[in-house]
Amino acid sequence: MNIPHIELPRVVIIGCGFAGLKLAKTLDSKKYQVVLLDKNNYHTFQPLMYQVASSGIEPDSIVYPVRKVFKGKKNFYFRMALIQGINNEIKEIFTNIGSLKYDYLIIATGAISNFFGMNNIEKYAFTMKTLLESLDLRSVILQNFEKALNTSDPKERERYMSFVIVGAGPTGVELAGALAELKNNILPKDYPDLDITLMQIHIIEATDRVLSNMSKKASTKSLKFLEDLGIKVWLNTVVRDYDGKTVTTNINDFNTKTLIWSAGVKGAPIENLKARLTRDNRIIVDDQNKVIGYSKIFAIGDVACIESEQNGKGHAMLASVAGQQGKHLGKNLNAIIKNPKMKPFHYKDRGTMATIGRNRAVVDLPFLKFGGTIAWFVWMFLHLMLLVDFRNRLIVFANWSWSYFSYDKGIRLIIREVKERT
Amino acid sequence: MNIPHIELPRVVIIGCGFAGLKLAKTLDSKKYQVVLLDKNNYHTFQPLMYQVASSGIEPDSIVYPVRKVFKGKKNFYFRMALIQGINNEIKEIFTNIGSLKYDYLIIATGAISNFFGMNNIEKYAFTMKTLLESLDLRSVILQNFEKALNTSDPKERERYMSFVIVGAGPTGVELAGALAELKNNILPKDYPDLDITLMQIHIIEATDRVLSNMSKKASTKSLKFLEDLGIKVWLNTVVRDYDGKTVTTNINDFNTKTLIWSAGVKGAPIENLKARLTRDNRIIVDDQNKVIGYSKIFAIGDVACIESEQNGKGHAMLASVAGQQGKHLGKNLNAIIKNPKMKPFHYKDRGTMATIGRNRAVVDLPFLKFGGTIAWFVWMFLHLMLLVDFRNRLIVFANWSWSYFSYDKGIRLIIREVKERT
Repeated sequence: MNIPHIELPRVVIIGCGFAGLKLAKTLDSKKYQVVLLDKNNYHTFQPLMYQVASSGIEPDSIVYPVRKVFKGKKNFYFRMALIQGINNEIKEIFTNIGSLKYDYLIIATGAISNFFGMNNIEKYAFTMKTLLESLDLRSVILQNFEKALNTSDPKERERYMSFVIVGAGPTGVELAGALAELKNNILPKDYPDLDITLMQIHIIEATDRVLSNMSKKASTKSLKFLEDLGIKVWLNTVVRDYDGKTVTTNINDFNTKTLIWSAGVKGAPIENLKARLTRDNRIIVDDQNKVIGYSKIFAIGDVACIESEQNGKGHAMLASVAGQQGKHLGKNLNAIIKNPKMKPFHYKDRGTMATIGRNRAVVDLPFLKFGGTIAWFVWMFLHLMLLVDFRNRLIVFANWSWSYFSYDKGIRLIIREVKERT
Repeated sequence: MNIPHIELPRVVIIGCGFAGLKLAKTLDSKKYQVVLLDKNNYHTFQPLMYQVASSGIEPDSIVYPVRKVFKGKKNFYFRMALIQGINNEIKEIFTNIGSLKYDYLIIATGAISNFFGMNNIEKYAFTMKTLLESLDLRSVILQNFEKALNTSDPKERERYMSFVIVGAGPTGVELAGALAELKNNILPKDYPDLDITLMQIHIIEATDRVLSNMSKKASTKSLKFLEDLGIKVWLNTVVRDYDGKTVTTNINDFNTKTLIWSAGVKGAPIENLKARLTRDNRIIVDDQNKVIGYSKIFAIGDVACIESEQNGKGHAMLASVAGQQGKHLGKNLNAIIKNPKMKPFHYKDRGTMATIGRNRAVVDLPFLKFGGTIAWFVWMFLHLMLLVDFRNRLIVFANWSWSYFSYDKGIRLIIREVKERT
């Protein structure tokens, strides 16, 4: 790889999610040469991906060019690359665009969908872990309605107009809410010759409550919000199989062409790294995010599991944890010459929130838990502030204001045809 | 196709470009049942496609959902469909989603790239006639710079950093200007470790002037604008071949991985319609846009050629002609019961314009021809007004204002990897 050799130690960061981005921003250019690698040339604001899938905001507003984030940063190099492996004896990683030596290696490769070995689900379900997957899902949802118009078989029409979301975490709940808003406000106008009341939205959840990462109060409130919107929530329900047409569970069968899988993720560690992994493929690290058994290899964000936390389960796989770990490791590395003993990472929980639709959100703060319209405005404001850049904020704000006052969504476009999977 | 039978005569319109859209809008719902067919579920504002290709505005801002345009229109049906053929004896068209009877059939299928039989060009060149092609071009342009970073072969780097545009019509000229702005304002900041002065932009034009559809004054002025921006314009130059690496012409060879073909279009008539076609595949129609030999089949927009105009060459293939023909035919059909004799179409030339970059545009009005900053603001204002909808205008305006004041462009995203063609 064409990266100049300079006097400073080289930090190679793999992955430009919340963890890698924050680390690269924090590292001091006078102390390190920083090389950031990612398979995409953009950072994705994952918490708003469901809005892309449901035609709420344009894809270009929730992703941001990496090179633009680091404009003007000295001793910084970005490369689009796929990681193929590592040899720590010669301190080198291998990629599709050549190999690269490192002094420090940081693995921030995030998480991917976990199908728990269910091959049929992997084959037929849709997911929402990348921008392209979200765009595909947008196309699929809209294509379904076009196809529902063209069939005279009621069973077939039901399959096109039913959406089954597995997993009542934030992603599942927020997507279900957005689909319900499409159903209630948009689709009847777009498809006057289709009976939109036939559209069904189901959430299937294995545990006994929705948003189980939040407070009981938030769970109860959001269950009510979901049901108010006409969404059917199936608790204590476990998906057994899916053939692209029918979902089988321990309770019921569901006819649907569109199963959306948001029931689990697992770490995405790099190939041939000799490290201990958790059952869900996360790299086990110490409380400084150092990979056990290495001295200069770290893992941060979703791919890392600090074993001493949560009885060996590590922190929740959240953007806020990832960002804090990136920043913390950056500070530790900046201080290493003066202070070789790194400080342990402590997560500062600033609260959790989820939105279920217009005027319906739940917020858990350390000192206060509430839901409803104010929570929804808080959610909107915070997510706007978190978007990387002023320009994106402007576009998203324009979209949201427009949606709010017009009860309309802008972007119902089938950009790419997505083939049916059965 | 599931379209209800009602008392009113059925008008089937194929294609939702400027002509089809305007016609469908104009037709009176009390007099006709209107069925609009298109392969996409959106209308594309083609004049701004070059801005998508050059990372200036988001793709979702220049396309607009068809169903949203016709929200609330009575007796109107939209279907996504690919046309496969026609049988006028039984007044029926055949599509991938079934067949459909018509009383009136309107062909508004537009134009596609014309490679004049040069298969290598068709195979290796990039085009910009659809939204997907524009998005691919955006990805290709950005990928080229990522790849230029990774090669140590100067010849190879030149190929990645050279862009050859064939055809100095509005599309070619506007894209070249946008690329020059990327080169001058954006890329040096994005790629500090690459010598962006090596980037070359060439326009190859077979005739002796650029923008030959406009006045001599506009041609002279825009040639100067292009050269001011560092673009090399090769007049009287004819492309002979391209192998994906080298363009050969009657004058010179050009090393480039990216040849952009904007040198010609041809009509895209429907299969097995028995009609006389021009040399560039347009359907020959009378001055009421009626296809010669038929009484209730019409062709409008780029695909139609009114033989009595321009010595048999028909009107220029422009959005403004298409829109006016759609509106005119709509009025004729609305009046047909009272007034069976249709009025002939007369094109009202309200002027032509092109923009070459920031503060550089040329405007030809019937009574005035001018260029420069004011022309550029006129161009911006008119294109904003022409965008179908308030929401899109807002987003585009936000983007343009941002670009103008920050000298930056927002959307440098490689959304899909586009494979190299050699």
